[in-house]
Order: sequence, then C-alpha cells, then structure tokens
Amino acid sequence: MSYFPEVTAKIKYEGKDSKNPLAFKYYNPEQTVAGKTMRDHLRFSIAYWHTFMGGGQDIFGLPTFAHSWHHSSDPLDRAKHTLAAAFEFFEKLDVDYYCFHDRDISPEGSTFAETQKNFEIIINMAKDLQQSSGVKLLWGTANLFSHPRYAQGAGTNPNAHVFAYAAAQVKAAIDATHVLGGENYVFWGGREGYETLLNTDMKHEQTQFARFLHMAVDYKKKIGFEGQFLIEPKPKEPTTHQYDTDAATTLSFLREYDLLDHFKLNIEANHATLAGHTFQHELAVSATAGKLGSVDANRGDTLLGWDTDQFPTNLYDTTLAMLVILEQGGLGSGGLNFDAKPRRTSIDDIDLFYAHIGGMDAFARGLLAAQKIIDDGVFSRFISERYASYQSGIGKDIMAGNFSLEKATAWIAENGEPTRKSARQELLENILNQYI
Amino acid sequence: MSYFPEVTAKIKYEGKDSKNPLAFKYYNPEQTVAGKTMRDHLRFSIAYWHTFMGGGQDIFGLPTFAHSWHHSSDPLDRAKHTLAAAFEFFEKLDVDYYCFHDRDISPEGSTFAETQKNFEIIINMAKDLQQSSGVKLLWGTANLFSHPRYAQGAGTNPNAHVFAYAAAQVKAAIDATHVLGGENYVFWGGREGYETLLNTDMKHEQTQFARFLHMAVDYKKKIGFEGQFLIEPKPKEPTTHQYDTDAATTLSFLREYDLLDHFKLNIEANHATLAGHTFQHELAVSATAGKLGSVDANRGDTLLGWDTDQFPTNLYDTTLAMLVILEQGGLGSGGLNFDAKPRRTSIDDIDLFYAHIGGMDAFARGLLAAQKIIDDGVFSRFISERYASYQSGIGKDIMAGNFSLEKATAWIAENGEPTRKSARQELLENILNQYI
Amino acid sequence: MSYFPEVTAKIKYEGKDSKNPLAFKYYNPEQTVAGKTMRDHLRFSIAYWHTFMGGGQDIFGLPTFAHSWHHSSDPLDRAKHTLAAAFEFFEKLDVDYYCFHDRDISPEGSTFAETQKNFEIIINMAKDLQQSSGVKLLWGTANLFSHPRYAQGAGTNPNAHVFAYAAAQVKAAIDATHVLGGENYVFWGGREGYETLLNTDMKHEQTQFARFLHMAVDYKKKIGFEGQFLIEPKPKEPTTHQYDTDAATTLSFLREYDLLDHFKLNIEANHATLAGHTFQHELAVSATAGKLGSVDANRGDTLLGWDTDQFPTNLYDTTLAMLVILEQGGLGSGGLNFDAKPRRTSIDDIDLFYAHIGGMDAFARGLLAAQKIIDDGVFSRFISERYASYQSGIGKDIMAGNFSLEKATAWIAENGEPTRKSARQELLENILNQYI
Amino acid sequence: MSYFPEVTAKIKYEGKDSKNPLAFKYYNPEQTVAGKTMRDHLRFSIAYWHTFMGGGQDIFGLPTFAHSWHHSSDPLDRAKHTLAAAFEFFEKLDVDYYCFHDRDISPEGSTFAETQKNFEIIINMAKDLQQSSGVKLLWGTANLFSHPRYAQGAGTNPNAHVFAYAAAQVKAAIDATHVLGGENYVFWGGREGYETLLNTDMKHEQTQFARFLHMAVDYKKKIGFEGQFLIEPKPKEPTTHQYDTDAATTLSFLREYDLLDHFKLNIEANHATLAGHTFQHELAVSATAGKLGSVDANRGDTLLGWDTDQFPTNLYDTTLAMLVILEQGGLGSGGLNFDAKPRRTSIDDIDLFYAHIGGMDAFARGLLAAQKIIDDGVFSRFISERYASYQSGIGKDIMAGNFSLEKATAWIAENGEPTRKSARQELLENILNQYI
Repeated sequence: MSYFPEVTAKIKYEGKDSKNPLAFKYYNPEQTVAGKTMRDHLRFSIAYWHTFMGGGQDIFGLPTFAHSWHHSSDPLDRAKHTLAAAFEFFEKLDVDYYCFHDRDISPEGSTFAETQKNFEIIINMAKDLQQSSGVKLLWGTANLFSHPRYAQGAGTNPNAHVFAYAAAQVKAAIDATHVLGGENYVFWGGREGYETLLNTDMKHEQTQFARFLHMAVDYKKKIGFEGQFLIEPKPKEPTTHQYDTDAATTLSFLREYDLLDHFKLNIEANHATLAGHTFQHELAVSATAGKLGSVDANRGDTLLGWDTDQFPTNLYDTTLAMLVILEQGGLGSGGLNFDAKPRRTSIDDIDLFYAHIGGMDAFARGLLAAQKIIDDGVFSRFISERYASYQSGIGKDIMAGNFSLEKATAWIAENGEPTRKSARQELLENILNQYI
Repeated sequence: MSYFPEVTAKIKYEGKDSKNPLAFKYYNPEQTVAGKTMRDHLRFSIAYWHTFMGGGQDIFGLPTFAHSWHHSSDPLDRAKHTLAAAFEFFEKLDVDYYCFHDRDISPEGSTFAETQKNFEIIINMAKDLQQSSGVKLLWGTANLFSHPRYAQGAGTNPNAHVFAYAAAQVKAAIDATHVLGGENYVFWGGREGYETLLNTDMKHEQTQFARFLHMAVDYKKKIGFEGQFLIEPKPKEPTTHQYDTDAATTLSFLREYDLLDHFKLNIEANHATLAGHTFQHELAVSATAGKLGSVDANRGDTLLGWDTDQFPTNLYDTTLAMLVILEQGGLGSGGLNFDAKPRRTSIDDIDLFYAHIGGMDAFARGLLAAQKIIDDGVFSRFISERYASYQSGIGKDIMAGNFSLEKATAWIAENGEPTRKSARQELLENILNQYI
Repeated sequence: MSYFPEVTAKIKYEGKDSKNPLAFKYYNPEQTVAGKTMRDHLRFSIAYWHTFMGGGQDIFGLPTFAHSWHHSSDPLDRAKHTLAAAFEFFEKLDVDYYCFHDRDISPEGSTFAETQKNFEIIINMAKDLQQSSGVKLLWGTANLFSHPRYAQGAGTNPNAHVFAYAAAQVKAAIDATHVLGGENYVFWGGREGYETLLNTDMKHEQTQFARFLHMAVDYKKKIGFEGQFLIEPKPKEPTTHQYDTDAATTLSFLREYDLLDHFKLNIEANHATLAGHTFQHELAVSATAGKLGSVDANRGDTLLGWDTDQFPTNLYDTTLAMLVILEQGGLGSGGLNFDAKPRRTSIDDIDLFYAHIGGMDAFARGLLAAQKIIDDGVFSRFISERYASYQSGIGKDIMAGNFSLEKATAWIAENGEPTRKSARQELLENILNQYI
Repeated sequence: MSYFPEVTAKIKYEGKDSKNPLAFKYYNPEQTVAGKTMRDHLRFSIAYWHTFMGGGQDIFGLPTFAHSWHHSSDPLDRAKHTLAAAFEFFEKLDVDYYCFHDRDISPEGSTFAETQKNFEIIINMAKDLQQSSGVKLLWGTANLFSHPRYAQGAGTNPNAHVFAYAAAQVKAAIDATHVLGGENYVFWGGREGYETLLNTDMKHEQTQFARFLHMAVDYKKKIGFEGQFLIEPKPKEPTTHQYDTDAATTLSFLREYDLLDHFKLNIEANHATLAGHTFQHELAVSATAGKLGSVDANRGDTLLGWDTDQFPTNLYDTTLAMLVILEQGGLGSGGLNFDAKPRRTSIDDIDLFYAHIGGMDAFARGLLAAQKIIDDGVFSRFISERYASYQSGIGKDIMAGNFSLEKATAWIAENGEPTRKSARQELLENILNQYI
C-alpha cells in the first residue's frame, strides 16, 4: 500500500532547467562540494509534527488537510499508518533524517502508563523502519506545551506535580531517542516563560528550570546517551515572554546555572526574526560561542508577528546561513530540519513534496554559493584587512591586555585624530548579489 | 540674569486638584512613604543632553527650539551659559541630580588637547555650581557615538587608533565624574554593534569591547573612584544590531568576559520596548540578577520603531516600575533619570518645566500605588500561594537538587495527573486597576 | 439547573473601595452621566464565541477550559446547553446585549439543509430566551472563515461555488438576525484577502467582494431588515493581507464600489494596533467619516504580533475611546462588545465573570473621565484656539475655497515668516493624567 | 574640474562575470527587452537630496561625508558646485533623470524673496545643464518638512499663515518643475499628520489639505503644466501618524475630496514595509486602481522601525516590482528613482557609484526575470485557471450582478458542498526561484 501513489519513484536531480516539479533542480545528493557530498553537508531532516501530523488548522480555522494516513478512528492505528507514511515519504524524497516529539509520533493515552505503552509500541516500529530504510533520527524531543497540564509551564510550572510529570515525560523521550540512536535531543520551552509578572516569580521559575535541565544532564550521563543536548530559543508565542528568548539570552541562562558545557543551540530562522534578529545573526551568535548545534530550517514573514513556519526559499537566507555553517566546519551531529509546513490552502499530499523539494533546492543553492564565496575569499579578505590594525602596535597590545586608559591618553596626545575608512557595505552587497 | 524668567519660584506641591500647570499634583518631596521621603525614593535626575542641548531636530527636520542659553556664537561661552541655565532649572524644579555626556557639557575642540581643556574649564564650573546649589551628579558618561570617528564603533572599532581615542576620552570622562563626586558612571554603546555581517568579525569586536571595559575597571580601581559602573542596554538604533541588545544579552556578555562583578545595568523604558520587552520585564531581569543599578525614566511609542524618548506619564508603567524598585529595596546609588525630550513642537522653555513636572508626578503616583500594593500584599500573597508546592515534598526536593527523572517517573506512576488551577490574570489586572 | 452556581445573584455596584471580586467598582448601570444612564451610554454586549464557545486552545495547545455546558456529546444538545448558560450569564452579569456567529450558536451539520435546520432550532430557542430575559441581540454575523471550504476566501474565493455557499450562509444569518431583532449585522472578512500575489488576481477578488456586499444590501432592503450593516477592519491574521486592513482602507473600498451609504464600521481595539494605529485613531477616522457604528471592546499587546483579544482594562484606552464616542453623540445602534477572552490559564467559569467585570469597570471609568473632560472643555478649548486662524482672514478664505497659490505668494511677500507656537503635548498629557 | 576624478569614464556594461566594481553586470542600457531598451523600461533617476546633499548624519551622529562640492562656505556657491557635481555624476553613471526638492537644490535665504532669488539662479543653471547633458527632470517637489515653520504641518498646519507660506513655496516649486520640463511633480506629506489627538482636529486638517491640493491642481491647469501630480504615501516618521499612510488610505482621501482624477501615486519600497505591507502589495494596489505613477526605488530593513533608505539589491523585490510594472504596461511618465543613501560608514564619493550600480543591476535583473516570467506565462496561466469558474454559469452571473442571496441559497441546495483545490503556494514559490 502506498500513501503517496502520485510519486512513483525517488525524487531525482534533473538540473536547473528542469520543469519537472517533482525533481531537484540544484540538490544533487552525491555531488561533491569542497570534498564532501551535498547529502553530508546538508543533513536534511523532516519534522514529523508539521509534515505528517499537521492538519492545516490555524487559530481561526479548522484542519484543511485530509491525509489518508489519518483516516483510522483508532489513535494507535492512526499512529502506525502515519509512521508508515512517514518512512515512505523519507525514502521517496531521499532524505536521511527525521525528528519527532513524543506526542506527534504516538498518542496520549488516558493514563501515564497507557501513554507510555503507546509510545513503546510506536518506538519499536520506528526502530524497525529505521533499520530497513537506513533513515536515522536527527533528534527526539518531548512535547511539553500542548497538553492543558502544561498551560502554565513544564519545568517552570508553579505546581511541583506538573514539574514531576514533565520530568517523567522527558525521561521517556530521552530513552526513546537513545533506543533509536538519535544524534541529538532537543528542549524547546514554548511554555517556559510568563504571561504576566503580576502572578509570577521569575527567579523561582528560572531556578526550577535549571534544576530540570540538570536532572536531564544527570540522566543522560547515567544511561550513556551520547547525543547532543540542544536548546531552541524563541522569544514569544505561545507564551508572552519565554525565558529562552534568543541565542544570547539562552547562553546567559546556561552560563548562570552552570549548564553551558552540556548544551548547544538549535537555531530556527523564524524564531530569530520574531526575536528581532536576522537568521544569520542568531547562527553567528551561536557559532561564535561554539554552540551552534543544529538548525530548524524554515522562513518567517517579518511583516507578520507569529511563527508562520514557511518553507525556506529565500536564497539570501540560505546562502548566509550556509556561510556561517561552512565557516564553523559544518553541522556536526546537527542537521537542517524542515520545521516548516505548507500553507493551509496547499491541501494535497503532493504539496508536501513540492514544499520540501523547494527547501532542499534553496539550501543546495545556498551551499554552492557559500562555498564559492569562501573559495573566492572576497569577504574574508575584506574583513581581515579591516581589522588589521589589531595585528601589531597598540592593536596587538589591546588584544593582549597590555593597554590602559592612561596609555591610550598618552598615545592619542601623540597621534591625534584617526583616519577614517569606508566600510563599503554597498559594494559588499553588490558582490553578494553576484553569488546569488 | 535668569534663563527661565517665567518661573519665578521653586515648583511646589499643590495637591491633585491643582490646576496650576507649574505645580506638582502628586510629587511632594518631603512626604514620607514607608519611612523614606519621596525625594529619597525617587532620586530624580535631569538629562543634560535632552533638556539643555536638545534642539528639537529630527531626521527630517531642523532644530525648532531657540533657547536663550544657546545664543552665543562662541562654543565655550555657550557651554557656560548652558551650565548656568541648567543649574537654574535644577533649583527651580527642585531636583537633586543630573547626568551628562562629556560632549554635551563641553564642546569638542579642534584637537584632543583643546577638547580636554574645554572640558576641564566646564567641569570646574560645574563643581562650583554643585557646591553652591547642593545639586549632585548621578552619573557621567562619554559620548562615543556622535563624532564621525566613531561611526564604526568605539571600543568595537575595527581600527585600533579609534579604540585608543575612545579609551582616552573615557579616561577623561571618568576623571571628571570622579572630581564631581558622581555616584555612577555609564557606558551606552550606541555604535558598539554591526551594520552588516558581510564586513564584521563579531567575535573580534566583542573581545575588543571586553578589553575596553576591563581597562575602565582597572582605571577605576587605580584612581579610587567609588561610583558604580553601569551598562545601558539597547537593541538597535543607531546601529542595526547592538551587542548590548537587552538586559539578558548584556548579562551574558558580562558573564562571558568576567566583568559581572564590576557592572550593573541602567535600564531605559524606551530601550526595553524597542527590544520587544516591557519596561517592567527589563527591570525585573536586572533586579533578579541583583544588577538593577539605575533607570532612564522615559516612555516610547510601541507603534513606532525608534527611540521617541517621551516623558514618562503612563501610570501603569510607573507603578509597575516602582514595584520592582521597592521590592529590591530601592535604587541604591542609582536614580530616575529623565532621558526624555519634549516633542519638537513644544518649543517654549516653559515646556521643559511642564514635561518634567508631568514625569515627576507620574512616578510619585507610581510610588504611592506600588507601596500600597506592597502594604496590602495582594499580589505577593497570590504568588507565594501559587508556588507553595515547592515548600515541601517533591517540590522541596526539586529545589534542593534531590530529585531525578527516575524519581519523577516513579512518583507520577503513583500520583498520576496533576490538578489544574487558574492563574487568575484578569482578576489580578482588575485589582491592579484599583491601585491606579 | 445553574451553570454558574458560584454566582448566586446579579452582579451589583459596590463602589470603588469594594474588595469583592464579584462586584462592580465603577459601573453603576442606573447612574446618570450627562442625562443618560451608564447602561445606555455603554450598551455592553457579550461575544458568544469567546465567552461560551472558547476553549482556551492556542496554536500550540489544546483546550484548557472544561465548561459544564459543553459536556454533552450531541452537538445540538450541546448548543442548547450553551445557549441556556449564555442567558444565565447575561442576566447574572446584568448585560443587555450579545452577539454571535451562526456557527458559534448552532452546529454545522453534514449537509447545508441539516446545518440550516440546526440553526433554525437554536434561533427559535434564542428568541424565546430573549423574550423572557429582555436581553437583546446587538448583532449577528456569519462565520465565513473556520470551515475548510473558506480557506481561500468566501466572497473573494476564486471558486464561484464557494462564493455561492457563502452567500447562502449570509442569507440565513441575516434572516436569523432579523428574526431576533438584531440592531446590526456584521461582516468580518478574515479570509477576504490573499496569501501571495503569485496566485492572486486582486482586482477580481475585490470586485467579487463588492458584488457580495451589494447582494447583501439588496437582500436587506427586500426583507425590510432595518439593522445597520457593519464592516470590521483587520489587517492580517488569519490571512497575510486582508482587504479590509483598517478603517481608511475599508472606507476607500466602500467608496470605490458605491457601498458607502450602506455600511458603517465596527472598530476593534486589537485590530487597530495590529494595523499600526492606536484604538483612538481608528475610532476617530471612523467617527470623522460619520461611520463609527460599533466597537469590539478588547485590548491587544503591542509587543506581540497577533490578536490576543484580552479584556480591556487600560484606562487610557477606555477614556480616549469614550471621548470619541461621546463627541460623536454616542454609539447609536452600536455597542461595546467584549470581543475578548480570558487567558487560557484562567480556567474557571468564574474567571469569565472576573474578566467581564474588569472590562465593564474600565469602560465605566473611561466614560466618567471622558464626560468630565468634555464638561471641563480643556482639550476642546485648546483645539479651537489652535485652529482659530481659519475663522477669519486668509484662513477663512482657504476653508471656503477662495484662495490660490498666487494669492498665497502675494500674501507671504507682504507678511513674511509666520510666528511659531507650542503645541503643548506634554502639558496636555499631564492634564489627561489628572482625569485618569 | 572633476568632482569624481576616480571615475574616468562613463560606467559601462561588462556582463555578469565582471569583477570590476565600476561596471554594470546586468544593466545594459541599449539591450532590448520585449521591444524596448532597458533604459526606456527602467527610467532610472537620481535623488538629489540623498546623493548630493546627504551628509551621513543620523539622529545620534554628525555628518561623516566630506564631499568636495560642499567645501565652499557660501551657501549659493555651494549649491552651484553641488549642481555641477550632480550633472557630472549623472553623465558618468549614464542616468537620464533626476529629482529634487526646492531646498536641496538651492538654499533657504533669510527672507522669502531671497530664497526665491536663490532658487531662480539655480534653476536657470539646472536648465542649462539639462540642455547640455540631455539629462531630464523626472520630478520636482517642495520640501515642506525640514524648516521649523512646518513642524506642525504645511497644508495641515493649524496656523493659516504657515499654510499660505507652504502654498507660496509650492507655487515656486511647480513653476521651477515646469520650466525644467519635469515629467511629474510630487507631494510627500512628512508633516501632514498628527502627533497626538489631544491637540488635533483631524477633520479640519484633512479638509485643509484637500484645499491645498485643489489649489495646486488649479494652478497646474492655469499655467499649462502637463506633468503628472503624484502623492507619496508613508505611514509614520517623522510624524507619528501621517494622513497618507499607504496607497489605499491615500486613494480613499483622494476619492473623498474629489481629487482622484488629478493624482497618481509615487510608491516607495521602504514606506510600504513601514506601513506593514510588501513593496509589491503597494505597487499592486496602485496599479489595480490605475494609479501607479512612479517608484521610489530603495529598500528598508523590516527588522528596523525607521526609513533606512538602503539601495535596492534584493532580487525578489526587484523582480516582483518589475512584474507589476510590466503588467501595467510600464512606468509611463514615471521612473525608478533611487531614494536611497549609502550607509554613513560608506564615506567615499566612490561609494555613491558602487551603491547606484548595485541598484541598477538589481533592477535590470528584475526586469529580465519579470519579462521571462511573463513570456513563459506560468503564473498568469495558473491565475486564470484559478478564477475560471467566474467565466461561465453562476460565476458569470455573479460578476455581471445577476446573482442574489436567494439564488445562492437555491443553487447550494442543489449543488451542495464545493470541491476544494490546492492554491499551490509552495510550488509557485519554487518556480519563482527558478527565475531569480
């Protein structure tokens, strides 16, 4: 049985002039770029929640999709069909990784025990499918934001009972990720924040949350899970103010609570712009701190104030993102996970293929452009000349900590006003356009 | 000679029904609130740049104000008149503190030496005026953003020569602040950031900037300056991305570069909202970290995307701000500095009085409301009940670090689903309205 | 049987010092303000969808409310319980009006005929309840945005079949509103707009939509429905770009398509701020055009980019809104409809009472303040002096159309530079604070 | 004497692989696209204010540019040098058009008469330079926002004296534009709006403004000026709320005051995004109304809240803009005016060349892509199929006004639920990427 009968074979690379909507125009998995295949550079991953569980609903409208894998009225049966459809999709799209939340992949039962039982059944099935297909788990995570019990937070919930519930759920999700050989495990704190300070003890909540993460770190060590722990920053939505607002805020929290060694960041494009930053900025902040772990590859709409989770097709974004990624030596155990959904008016299953193909091609173009930029050295040469004065003289002293306000005063008394130099932003932007 | 002949006496408190635009309706300096005078609670300060140097210009328009103290064509003479006008204003408004940038209070000369000479003359005059009036310096700072040499940053400038110039300027500004008995010294990095990553080495710039601040810390110790060092976060404007975006980001930077012990934060209302946060959020983040040093009391317009620096008149803002301040035990060596300017259509000198009176009354009302909220204990009682589950049982274990994912799983197996409880936001907002 | 057993009697006015959360502190329905009762000034209305149908879900979370009137598993039975609960709520809260969408009040059936049958049953029940309670219908409307068939628009749908479906649904909703004596009928076009211009013919869609509205106007006349037709502007959400973005845009559309005589506007506070305007601005634009028909009284969060639909508690907003409303001579057949919902963490039925009481008190305070402002004439006097030059001389000529560029040139040659005058914004803001 | 000695010859087209920063890579003026040269399609224009008068100042910083044409201390002499530099720039850049404000091109004198005298001298010089160079005037305008007299508006000023001053200034600016053969005349109302409704009579101001524009229309007819009148929408900045917020709002105003026949719109990219719209949206709204007159070609930063006026380099923007322009049959008497400025750190005169070259190439690429999109017919075919149901049956009846709510009800009773169809947004976005 096939869930995607319209796609009769693996999607293939056909080159940039192809008019076949079901072909890659730029993504050529085995093509080598700077000694590594595109496949290994890009490490594409499918987001289980959007692609297989998304229904096209929005806050003003009911689901619009009617996927065949959702037809069964029995939740567990539906979950099995969904998983089978997912692996058919992975193979037809020729993608190596996927990501899930515990509650996407298997249904909540009426008790904790039943929920765990469901989860176990599905995880076993996923293990078999991974084995037979070769598809791997990029990361697992626990959904600690959808159920009403988490409305006031999970690790930051004012009720210790909820904290414990969340902790139990995380244990199971880490276990599952471990069983499936997941290369990372993600924490996204959609409810870890506050709605109003009138009812909130911010210090208490942040301390709780640090305890929560330390417990996860301890457990990881105990069971020997080698995957990377990742935190995914987001500023707001659903919660008015989330504690892990952006990369810098999250790093500050990790530093304050002695968690920095145990976590990297999972940066999402749309979360970056909601925080008032560019995607490239959040990637660069993370990479600069040695903490860029993985990427949620999507696109927001900066004229809208919510997470639109559109597929990434903007070539400026993909090129500049790949530039940061290549400069830090690649994604490591991370990947490019399409945390993106078709618009709710794209109601056909085939639209899922179109959407992912577009995103994959856009990142492939970004990779090619970024590698060429690096090879040509245009920007890097400009930058090293721009900061050259720190390689010798007082510049060298400054960087080495051998300078002082008094020395500066004496030196300026002698040397006077500096000569100014153009920063050439427009010229550099023109050059960038030559690579797009 | 008087610069403000229309104001013939000190502004007085006349009570809330007064129709006199030149009287306080709520601010009664010697009135005691919880054992301290309003004067001592609020520690109002006048911002030299806006109040005496502001011309009403904006990016599309020329100056509209024609202050009598600016009539002289000689820069130093103009600076002296301005200083004299300032002290007349402080005394007539009955305010105890002021703040300045080096280049507001004294003019840039054609050489570094001439600039310093000007500065020295004016600082001496200020010292005399402080002595005769009893007015004190809340903080001094160096303007490292207006002069073209700083267009690409001061401490983060890619040219070490500019870095040295800035360092020399900061030395002089700290010296002056020290001489004048300033209670704090502020760093605001309006150009410490980047315009485009195409030409920027973010890591290099941040390392430079840390060196810059360490040099200031060393110098402070050396000369025995006891004032508090403050950093003032702002996300953007003038620079597209500033490194000290908001309180959390700044704390992260201070932690990373081992500067946390030496700095507190100066939080500005308008900078908070430009960063996508409420004023109260930024105050609370700072206070929670023990780092709320001082406040730039103004108001932005959240429907506009730039620093409007309006006078603070919103009673919700002033009440919630005073709540955070009272709960942390007051402003310490900091104050409420009116970093605010009249609209450019408020062209009369008397508008400066109206504007400040409005801001002072708004904070006086905020103080009275906040103290009553504390006395009544409504919110604090609600909050302690809300988190009560962390006082015993597993909650206590969690906070003490005696809990684990395995314990959580066992505990939930026994205790099942938590009971949910309303967070009562609407009721709390209604109660807040009873205090406004 | 009672759905709100905790509220044992009608909510009463107890005065501003009451600590009873279930009492009005300011809203005193029979108190007379400028010759009219508060009840008649404010014409409060309850929004059926949020108050009785809202479940507390958000885009990341499941429903959190568990209202007793939703317990039945039969949709029609559930609808009946809901209606009964609604009228109990109206009476206990002592509110005279309500509003509904067709699909809030009665369930969609499996065919159009079944849906209409359900609707008829419920409308009959509503008619009886109105009669027995004295509660009236402020407005009815059709939900043309939730069902998947409307994902690409209703009146603007590219498929004429959907257009016809929407038209049939609107006929039934107008009929129902007519039967129930509704004083207005509202059109809100949540899907009337576009997601991307790549697939959109904007001109075609707007022409369609004008046809749609003309059909409604024709039908209204035909059946003799005397209620006012209202359009409710909103800029985006759910649709990326909605054609009725704000008041001015909607007026432009009505003018272009010869619909201006037949419609007024229903202005919502949160929609105003999402469009980048203040609530007062949108009210004033509408009132200035003689087109302010009714108000959706809620509050947004200008730091968030979506419709938060919070209860209106900001006294600045309610005062300035009431000022516009009083100055236009009241709300006419419109009202203040609480298009607002408790936060999803306010899970108790009693929170619905708290929330509405807070909103009603906030508008009562706004009414009292606004009337006092009008009585004192402070702002109006300032404004008439400010424009006084247009009452005589060239000003009068200008307004009468008796001036020209040549006359201006001659007049300026003689009269030269104008004298400038302060616009006194800060002073006026201080005065406003004396009324809050 | 040369102002741009570094540029020794006209900028030439060298093709896309050129590394010469002073060459066009895509803009090939005489290359024919769909029967018209690129030059005639694009009608590039230079903005006098930014390119020759801009100093690099921002609200926090002094000018950073030191153009040789600004060295003279005599204002009129400086104006002459500037004009000479401008024409050298036009010719070296091979651009056919320019635009100016009266006060950019010639200095304000100490009296109205002196100002006019200055203006006349410079306009005569411009006339000669136009004749000798062949460069033409795209549009002229009056600066009614920089001088303090206009702080409270020009046509909307509460003082009739200021209104008259503005009218006199507009007469002179129209005269000058007429003398120079300007093809359009622009009104941008940067101060035509309000700061606070506390001191504003919105209706009075809008009526005034309509009078102002009618006077200009009358004068235009009288002197036989054949150029097109244009209004340029902008939502805010400098004024908190400007009356000509966006295209739809401006069209509404023109309709209300019987001005629609006399004006078209000048759409600026950065103003569009400040209004919360895309550039393409504002172009399409204008074109749909037959009112797209001209374009201010620049680019904003949607993460910043002010007019950054960057050079247009985003190929998505230029392609989609050219698509609207080509579909309406070209720019008519309008053009693509670079209302853009180099960043203040781009301090060299040569940066002006880099910046414009980049913008010209970006629009040339946009033109080529847009024409190919039209030739291939991909989007247009999709759109006509999408709305095909309106070509016959009930769809045709709807568009012809032969449908009614009753007919709809009967038709739906027979035809039931519509079939839904994918809107294919992702596929269309992928196809667009193939043209970038």
